[in-house]
Amino acid sequence: MSDKLFFASDYMEGCHPAILERLTQTNYEKTAGYGTDGYSEAARQKIRMLCNAPAAEIQFLVGGTQVNETVITSLLRPYQGVLAAETGHIAVHEAGAIEAGGHKVLPLKQEYGKISGDAVREYCRAFYADANHDHMVMPGMVYISQPTEYGTLYSLNELRDLHDACRQFGLYLYADGARLAYALAAEENDVTLLDLAEQCDVFYIGGTKCGALFGEAVVMADPGLIPHFFTIIKQRGALVAKGRITGLQFDTLFTDNLYEEAGRHALAEAEKIKAALKKYGYQFFFETPTNQIFIVLDNETLKTFGQKCEYSYWEPFDENHTVIRLATSWATDGADTEALIQLLETLSH
Amino acid sequence: MSDKLFFASDYMEGCHPAILERLTQTNYEKTAGYGTDGYSEAARQKIRMLCNAPAAEIQFLVGGTQVNETVITSLLRPYQGVLAAETGHIAVHEAGAIEAGGHKVLPLKQEYGKISGDAVREYCRAFYADANHDHMVMPGMVYISQPTEYGTLYSLNELRDLHDACRQFGLYLYADGARLAYALAAEENDVTLLDLAEQCDVFYIGGTKCGALFGEAVVMADPGLIPHFFTIIKQRGALVAKGRITGLQFDTLFTDNLYEEAGRHALAEAEKIKAALKKYGYQFFFETPTNQIFIVLDNETLKTFGQKCEYSYWEPFDENHTVIRLATSWATDGADTEALIQLLETLSH
Amino acid sequence: MSDKLFFASDYMEGCHPAILERLTQTNYEKTAGYGTDGYSEAARQKIRMLCNAPAAEIQFLVGGTQVNETVITSLLRPYQGVLAAETGHIAVHEAGAIEAGGHKVLPLKQEYGKISGDAVREYCRAFYADANHDHMVMPGMVYISQPTEYGTLYSLNELRDLHDACRQFGLYLYADGARLAYALAAEENDVTLLDLAEQCDVFYIGGTKCGALFGEAVVMADPGLIPHFFTIIKQRGALVAKGRITGLQFDTLFTDNLYEEAGRHALAEAEKIKAALKKYGYQFFFETPTNQIFIVLDNETLKTFGQKCEYSYWEPFDENHTVIRLATSWATDGADTEALIQLLETLSH
Amino acid sequence: MSDKLFFASDYMEGCHPAILERLTQTNYEKTAGYGTDGYSEAARQKIRMLCNAPAAEIQFLVGGTQVNETVITSLLRPYQGVLAAETGHIAVHEAGAIEAGGHKVLPLKQEYGKISGDAVREYCRAFYADANHDHMVMPGMVYISQPTEYGTLYSLNELRDLHDACRQFGLYLYADGARLAYALAAEENDVTLLDLAEQCDVFYIGGTKCGALFGEAVVMADPGLIPHFFTIIKQRGALVAKGRITGLQFDTLFTDNLYEEAGRHALAEAEKIKAALKKYGYQFFFETPTNQIFIVLDNETLKTFGQKCEYSYWEPFDENHTVIRLATSWATDGADTEALIQLLETLSH
Repeated sequence: MSDKLFFASDYMEGCHPAILERLTQTNYEKTAGYGTDGYSEAARQKIRMLCNAPAAEIQFLVGGTQVNETVITSLLRPYQGVLAAETGHIAVHEAGAIEAGGHKVLPLKQEYGKISGDAVREYCRAFYADANHDHMVMPGMVYISQPTEYGTLYSLNELRDLHDACRQFGLYLYADGARLAYALAAEENDVTLLDLAEQCDVFYIGGTKCGALFGEAVVMADPGLIPHFFTIIKQRGALVAKGRITGLQFDTLFTDNLYEEAGRHALAEAEKIKAALKKYGYQFFFETPTNQIFIVLDNETLKTFGQKCEYSYWEPFDENHTVIRLATSWATDGADTEALIQLLETLSH
Repeated sequence: MSDKLFFASDYMEGCHPAILERLTQTNYEKTAGYGTDGYSEAARQKIRMLCNAPAAEIQFLVGGTQVNETVITSLLRPYQGVLAAETGHIAVHEAGAIEAGGHKVLPLKQEYGKISGDAVREYCRAFYADANHDHMVMPGMVYISQPTEYGTLYSLNELRDLHDACRQFGLYLYADGARLAYALAAEENDVTLLDLAEQCDVFYIGGTKCGALFGEAVVMADPGLIPHFFTIIKQRGALVAKGRITGLQFDTLFTDNLYEEAGRHALAEAEKIKAALKKYGYQFFFETPTNQIFIVLDNETLKTFGQKCEYSYWEPFDENHTVIRLATSWATDGADTEALIQLLETLSH
Repeated sequence: MSDKLFFASDYMEGCHPAILERLTQTNYEKTAGYGTDGYSEAARQKIRMLCNAPAAEIQFLVGGTQVNETVITSLLRPYQGVLAAETGHIAVHEAGAIEAGGHKVLPLKQEYGKISGDAVREYCRAFYADANHDHMVMPGMVYISQPTEYGTLYSLNELRDLHDACRQFGLYLYADGARLAYALAAEENDVTLLDLAEQCDVFYIGGTKCGALFGEAVVMADPGLIPHFFTIIKQRGALVAKGRITGLQFDTLFTDNLYEEAGRHALAEAEKIKAALKKYGYQFFFETPTNQIFIVLDNETLKTFGQKCEYSYWEPFDENHTVIRLATSWATDGADTEALIQLLETLSH
Repeated sequence: MSDKLFFASDYMEGCHPAILERLTQTNYEKTAGYGTDGYSEAARQKIRMLCNAPAAEIQFLVGGTQVNETVITSLLRPYQGVLAAETGHIAVHEAGAIEAGGHKVLPLKQEYGKISGDAVREYCRAFYADANHDHMVMPGMVYISQPTEYGTLYSLNELRDLHDACRQFGLYLYADGARLAYALAAEENDVTLLDLAEQCDVFYIGGTKCGALFGEAVVMADPGLIPHFFTIIKQRGALVAKGRITGLQFDTLFTDNLYEEAGRHALAEAEKIKAALKKYGYQFFFETPTNQIFIVLDNETLKTFGQKCEYSYWEPFDENHTVIRLATSWATDGADTEALIQLLETLSH
């Protein structure tokens, strides 16, 4: 083990200890496979309650790219594509998973990772106004991330406006919640699980980056939205044989508010770091309300910083400066945060 | 929890307790993602040693269907299909995953789940003799399972013959080892990991059904066989963010021979059941050397049996009889085996 | 040019001379592209009349494999496959086009190229009775050919029964009419265009093998069956820029009964050959009511025959005999038929 | 027939009359199918000569989208995408054909439809410099059009630079020559067929828009570049049964320099129109060296113009002006050109 600090990302540790405890307790139970077990069902019930969507179909898959590809392929028809921020995960960092499934990602201009209802409307109006639009990929869905890849948040008003734009042009609205715990816990956040279930046709609650070993919970309030979704999940290689392992993780995270707490802890640690960054005069690339922090360092400072702390390289800022990302998580140790703040202080002199 | 016996399948329990222990011990370590961590690398080294393939590329994926689709798509060219027993998992129970990836499964007649080098040769000869073969799907690969879906085994001679047939006609040989532990531990087995690495272009070592929570280890002795396999894995939604969770599981299973023992235990329990079945005059559908047992029960007996014990329905035998499958696993409790034997005795009167 | 006789297939000549005349007459007209021109519309109207389907959507594509892939991809959902005779064109001779589009061809036992409503029912019942059917490819469509690849015909009763079986199990019924002219003109045929439009969700009227340079007319009585079919056609590379060329060919073939006559001519020539084969004691592989004739020749005779006449090799019959196919077409010259009969007489001595 | 002038596009008429003559002359010849006939072979030989590529593989397909999808799918591996001008035909007007084949179109900034070697290098350098590039779609090919969708031309130097950039980063270079005749005949053009064969891994010679009824000739100087290309063509529904129809068209176009002349005629007519536009003070959107002319009209003038002449709407210029395209072709009648010039004069007062 390195003695370096680690603030490179939010999926470096294992999982909330309560999960390991329950996995251990239940290890020798014999349950049905493929998510038909009691733990999965219990998790579903808890999520349905939180979403106020008593009939919701909920499926537990393994990872985000897999969920995105499976949901998008399930909903789109062959002639349709999916609108996304040009910085969206599906547009950039899924190695062409959506295209491998046969669909074009239609990139929209974004601001700090976000797109707006008006951007969607403008795209659709231009599309339908184009005399050749039946030679073009029809938009069939809008993909957003909450929080975005830049750690920013959609407000409830913005989400509603996206919802309205989608209804207006016959698009599905789908939200990628890989880091949803860190949105739900943010002070400025006003979008609840209930809102997501109401405004989005499909969204998923991220487990992998929010306290689980792995796993994402796909939620659709309308259980008839994707007929035979189970079989599509199987076909896409996304069906977990021992589905109870995923189900039990979500059941645990949604017991005693662990999911909420996981988010709150990460954000509390992030707040300390942000405060220190301000105090010591560091430059933010832009400010975020969640657990991802983007700052600009001069390259000399970065070199020293990098020897003491793992971070994520983001992009060059200018010839002499670089944008980096620091991330806290449900598992961030307060002592590490203190050590990081110490380091930031030292380097600021 | 039910008080019924459970012999329906081999993926109903959690995982080998040593895995949970190590997950717990290492829970707060911070490691790099996507399988680039030290646990994954340690597991790779152990597998490379056992395979005598020091340069082998080894990747850890989540489940079998996912592995099959990813490997097959990676190796085949657009005009090629994959030969498989008509009972092969990819031919029947993967919901069309291979076709969704663009490739036809070319079914071969089988015997108890097995195909032969000669069957491959015959298919290929007929194919190339056909004047229209360039209007047809060219065979590009042979898929086998070890053990097969029927619990039977390829001998080393049979495997070598398949290998030779593949070389003769320019086909890749790929072995699905979802239940490999139960092959390796079988008394009649003479195919080692080393043999698999030598005879097959690619094979995978099953974790999910052999003592892991989830996970399959894909092995190719020739590390250059699939350029950019990592990116294809990502694209297919098969890349685990916290790759260390999978790596650590395989590292554990290949420490102190746990994988071997997992197989041996299941087979010892299966042997007890097979002996009892013989003793009490039950009819085998066919005999298998591994952990899956196929028997024929009259429907009346089955009804009573089913009230006491979970089993897998296989197929109708005749109007009054049914084929069922019983399976043991690494986790089968000796007391349950005894109770099952008791039940079998009672029902035989 | 060879001085050999040619009875190898029905797409060796150009097209009905009336088509070339009209292409020449209209060559410098300037019309809108992509099938929106007046000739295409006129052809549609004629076909709608013959099908008694005034609202039918009709699109003109280039070739059969293209039509099959485009229609099947348009109608099936990702989790569905298409039932077809194991000898069906899509199952054997389209180089995996359907699988490349993501769908499995589910082969059914056939008799002389035909499948029955009961075979469909049996497959579907077994499928839905299988406890694992949601891990399997769901049948979503039945594909038939009229006439079949073996030159045989479905009767109206058989077609209706297939239609009923499809309705019973929620399947689309699709008929490949690559050689439809040779079905419509057959004495024993009782299936009209109107019947096809009524019983099938989609079918196509073959042009390429029935008197056109190229082109197939896809017909669906329900114009709302495939939303945005035009765009899917474009996406699949099947949209002809100068759509009027295809439209005008069908307009010509459906003027003055040319399509019907094309069929009648081929069948009259085929009848002469069949009569001669009987008279001279040749062995039929099986008898067909259409323009394809399957006979068994001893290999020595075949050698001589092959020096005088091009034929299609079909399959070995036994060690000393071979099955060959002879085909007439709309263009078969009576003099050639006479020469063939002469040759058959000579060889029979 | 309308009495309007037609300058909307270059695929409104039929074909060069010499083609119809030869189709008529050869109509009853019986030739082998699928492009294995003598006419196709003769056409291939002529093209090989012009390309100085005696071993080149040449295949005749039907239309451009089909060619693009088939070639790109054949050359790219699953993890690769294709770089193209963001205005490229595959990026905009093929209804997602490339994505339906599983590959992402990676858009590059363009200038009047063109991209540069340096733009390719910059993209690739940034790609390989990105720490996450193995989570991203790797560029595997560059797609260009000659002439571009905007009627502009690559010079030989520019083409060579693209070739060099491709070699540097392991990319295939592919040129879409849908309107190639209009490039070859342009005064400023210095890129010959021979240059295209030398600099591009694959390119195609457009027939549909350059004097044929339909058809595109795919040329690759290295005949081993795409193994089993024939079968892929079949699979993609792009194999013409009566291949001789396409072959004969290209054989005709490359006899007596008809292809060259077709281009020259269109450009001569275009030059007259361009001269008139300048004379009467019209505003060019930008100037092109080929048969497509882009001008800006005020909306009032456009209304009158549109009543007399069919044109292609391109895009809005500003609130009161619109960009339109006029196109000449191999078939443009000099009298129509005169009438158009007359109209332009009238409207300029």
